Amino acid sequence: MKHFTHLKDFTIDELNAIIDSAIALKKSAPAGLPLAGKSLAFCFMNPSLRTQVSFSVATASLGGHPVTLSLGSGGTWGMESVEGVVMDGTAAEHLKEAVPVLGRMCQGLGLRSFPAGKSWAEDKKENALAAFIKYSTVPVINMESASGHPCQALADLMTIRERMEPKKKNFLLSWAPHVKALPMAVPNSAVEIASMAGMNVTIARPEGYDLDPEVMARVGNNCAANGARLSLTDKVPQSFDGQHVVYGKSWGSLSEYGKPPSSDPAFRKKWTISAAKMQRTEKAIFMHCLPVRRGLVVEDAVLDGPWSVVIDEAENRLHTAKAVLLHLLASPKPAPARRHRK
Amino acid sequence: MKHFTHLKDFTIDELNAIIDSAIALKKSAPAGLPLAGKSLAFCFMNPSLRTQVSFSVATASLGGHPVTLSLGSGGTWGMESVEGVVMDGTAAEHLKEAVPVLGRMCQGLGLRSFPAGKSWAEDKKENALAAFIKYSTVPVINMESASGHPCQALADLMTIRERMEPKKKNFLLSWAPHVKALPMAVPNSAVEIASMAGMNVTIARPEGYDLDPEVMARVGNNCAANGARLSLTDKVPQSFDGQHVVYGKSWGSLSEYGKPPSSDPAFRKKWTISAAKMQRTEKAIFMHCLPVRRGLVVEDAVLDGPWSVVIDEAENRLHTAKAVLLHLLASPKPAPARRHRK
Amino acid sequence: MKHFTHLKDFTIDELNAIIDSAIALKKSAPAGLPLAGKSLAFCFMNPSLRTQVSFSVATASLGGHPVTLSLGSGGTWGMESVEGVVMDGTAAEHLKEAVPVLGRMCQGLGLRSFPAGKSWAEDKKENALAAFIKYSTVPVINMESASGHPCQALADLMTIRERMEPKKKNFLLSWAPHVKALPMAVPNSAVEIASMAGMNVTIARPEGYDLDPEVMARVGNNCAANGARLSLTDKVPQSFDGQHVVYGKSWGSLSEYGKPPSSDPAFRKKWTISAAKMQRTEKAIFMHCLPVRRGLVVEDAVLDGPWSVVIDEAENRLHTAKAVLLHLLASPKPAPARRHRK
Repeated sequence: MKHFTHLKDFTIDELNAIIDSAIALKKSAPAGLPLAGKSLAFCFMNPSLRTQVSFSVATASLGGHPVTLSLGSGGTWGMESVEGVVMDGTAAEHLKEAVPVLGRMCQGLGLRSFPAGKSWAEDKKENALAAFIKYSTVPVINMESASGHPCQALADLMTIRERMEPKKKNFLLSWAPHVKALPMAVPNSAVEIASMAGMNVTIARPEGYDLDPEVMARVGNNCAANGARLSLTDKVPQSFDGQHVVYGKSWGSLSEYGKPPSSDPAFRKKWTISAAKMQRTEKAIFMHCLPVRRGLVVEDAVLDGPWSVVIDEAENRLHTAKAVLLHLLASPKPAPARRHRK
Repeated sequence: MKHFTHLKDFTIDELNAIIDSAIALKKSAPAGLPLAGKSLAFCFMNPSLRTQVSFSVATASLGGHPVTLSLGSGGTWGMESVEGVVMDGTAAEHLKEAVPVLGRMCQGLGLRSFPAGKSWAEDKKENALAAFIKYSTVPVINMESASGHPCQALADLMTIRERMEPKKKNFLLSWAPHVKALPMAVPNSAVEIASMAGMNVTIARPEGYDLDPEVMARVGNNCAANGARLSLTDKVPQSFDGQHVVYGKSWGSLSEYGKPPSSDPAFRKKWTISAAKMQRTEKAIFMHCLPVRRGLVVEDAVLDGPWSVVIDEAENRLHTAKAVLLHLLASPKPAPARRHRK
Repeated sequence: MKHFTHLKDFTIDELNAIIDSAIALKKSAPAGLPLAGKSLAFCFMNPSLRTQVSFSVATASLGGHPVTLSLGSGGTWGMESVEGVVMDGTAAEHLKEAVPVLGRMCQGLGLRSFPAGKSWAEDKKENALAAFIKYSTVPVINMESASGHPCQALADLMTIRERMEPKKKNFLLSWAPHVKALPMAVPNSAVEIASMAGMNVTIARPEGYDLDPEVMARVGNNCAANGARLSLTDKVPQSFDGQHVVYGKSWGSLSEYGKPPSSDPAFRKKWTISAAKMQRTEKAIFMHCLPVRRGLVVEDAVLDGPWSVVIDEAENRLHTAKAVLLHLLASPKPAPARRHRK
């Protein structure tokens, strides 16, 4: 059975094939209703706008029935994911039941489960997603976990490919200020897929804001295999020089896990992505997964200026969602019936 | 691009054409699935029963895919609507991104956004709805804003038209007691559409409960243009004399904005709509947008008596929702293929 | 008009006919889309996973449009169900309006309304469900009320019938420990349908945990009419001897209503359903409605062992949901057109 949960499970050719399908679906609807008679449960343990709407619309547009669930809060039961515990706390249901049950009622499952933000060692286990993968009898889609957001990464690479041949182009992931210690899923996946696609990767971040070593090891290997550069720097605005893609994103520190970044005005000013910084690039496109805090992560002048592709990037969440659903669930086409010759 | 956000953007003929379509749709389903392949995002910043269900069912019944979103709370991100702010507060996303993104995934958007109830000057700006209109690339439906509830008004006029020719008939908007300072959207739209339809309009309300002067100016102009009467009074039960339509509704005071009305029993008794008051009318129909607080806004004997049309009025929310969707989104019919004569 | 709200409204033959339909639907989808053009509103006043997903998927798979509503909280208005009250509290809407309105927009309604857990005399009135039945003009489905969970009972009997002929087989309802005083709906319906199906019923529970006398009277009558045994016991593990079906479930005490059961370790150990207890049975199947607290209600070794049918039982919620929808809403088949003989 196929899942779509982590980029590392795929080769760049496989990911590009899904993106090829998304590009085709952006131009025209598929023939027929390939998901007719199929239901999918999209389970959210955290807020969502793009992911929720894109998977709902994608499923319906392919003839399927989307069920959007607020899992573990609100309308459903609190969920346990650890095996062997005595459930005398707040969780009323174990994923060991919930996931197989959903798999009996639906033909595919999605899960969004953010890290709790208290211990990276604990969050990195991705207990909820691991339970979905372990217990599911139907394909599972990772709609953002602690370690990655592969659906976002697909839309990101699609957006880049629509504008340039990524190989040997320069990709900057530039850390940005925030009021919260945000998850690292998006920056992890952004640099991972950029490195898979053969781009030169620069990560500009303050001291203490390095990404997870396992992710960085894969990124390093990818860059080495592709003959591309990987550089880390805390020099801004110099980091913007010569870039073709600027991916702005805030994330929390691993060394001071869960602690919000400094609110010092000079520090914020240094890292907020500005028009002045963008002007140092090679007419780079500006990317962000959204939602984005205007004036804090990035100046209005960048989002409203010629660099920004963030709305196109969000739209591509819809097309890549369709492509992922087809990749996981569409029946292979039967061989065309041969005509009998007379 | 067409929107359906404020009554003042339409002539009475245009509104009546939408209602004509609703009346036809109430009798029989439209041919085919005019919204096939189209998705709509209905965004709620506040509670809803009739609006939520009517737009969901209307969309599905026309072949479209409804996505009901709890925007700015619960399942999605807190939303900013003011331009130029540094987003270092609680809102994680700006409507300047969210609205265009939804417009890339869906073919139409609805928004319910109640006033905050602290400053009428601030609420009247309708920042969220204004942002939807400004940033949307697809049609926008106002599912109740601070200033009006045009979808309710359509159902209201349809309900009146099903029972009488509105021109020169007497329409009473009668203020009613409540435990909260309720929004003025419904009473604003009710008197505006009644005045557009040529009815004589009476507004009975306690001192300090006048509607917004801009709305009243439009209502006055409409009545003048139609040769109809507009009167304001605080005399109850005399206000009920000779009325053909009684529209009961509580709303908050503009002069003491956000303060709940008096709970004095004599004051409540004076304004609660009673069977005795209804008996003074010309066998008037009793209308209310619902939800309604029984025993406080209106006596059970009225809601359960011969005057009440509130359930029909609510049902008409469904048919007018379909008509609004078709008005905004249905492709114009192709010219019928000509038959070849032999 | 047909409803599906209480088991006592049906004969076992009628229930078995619905289950026959569910068994057929489990094998193959029905011809055509029997619910095309029909919408259903599933109203939840409490959390749900299986019920929510099963009715949504069942409705869509039959061609209908499901609307899942969080009623009386969250996205809609607080609901009043008592007649004649002055609504000056927190409830903004009376079911006397909400239910007929939903019936104008939808062709069927479902309601989940748990007991409040303060007074059994009050809870037993099932005010919300009673209001749905009283005010609805379309079929009503009880998706769990204070007194019963008939949809669960259908899936339960279907699960038993798939494995054995129930008549004269031994059915044990075994009380289990919990951190909360849970509702009695599921155990009530489980023993009621088992007794209707002609099984010998044993209820093993601690002192003070007897089920409602009205339910027990019906169960007693059913057993007497079927020549089957009904026994009550507080002897565990002896109660497991010779059983063919073990239905594990916790519920709160009627005599100390709303008070959680003892957390004494010895008491818990006595009542937690264990592999050792299951080994005393006649290779019984282990059933539970889910969600279930592992390690507290039942040992992991039972849920993960050869006895457990809980996932099949949950899957059958989907098939019985379809059968209930068809029972209530599908148009009777037109008589087949007669062929003209030549």
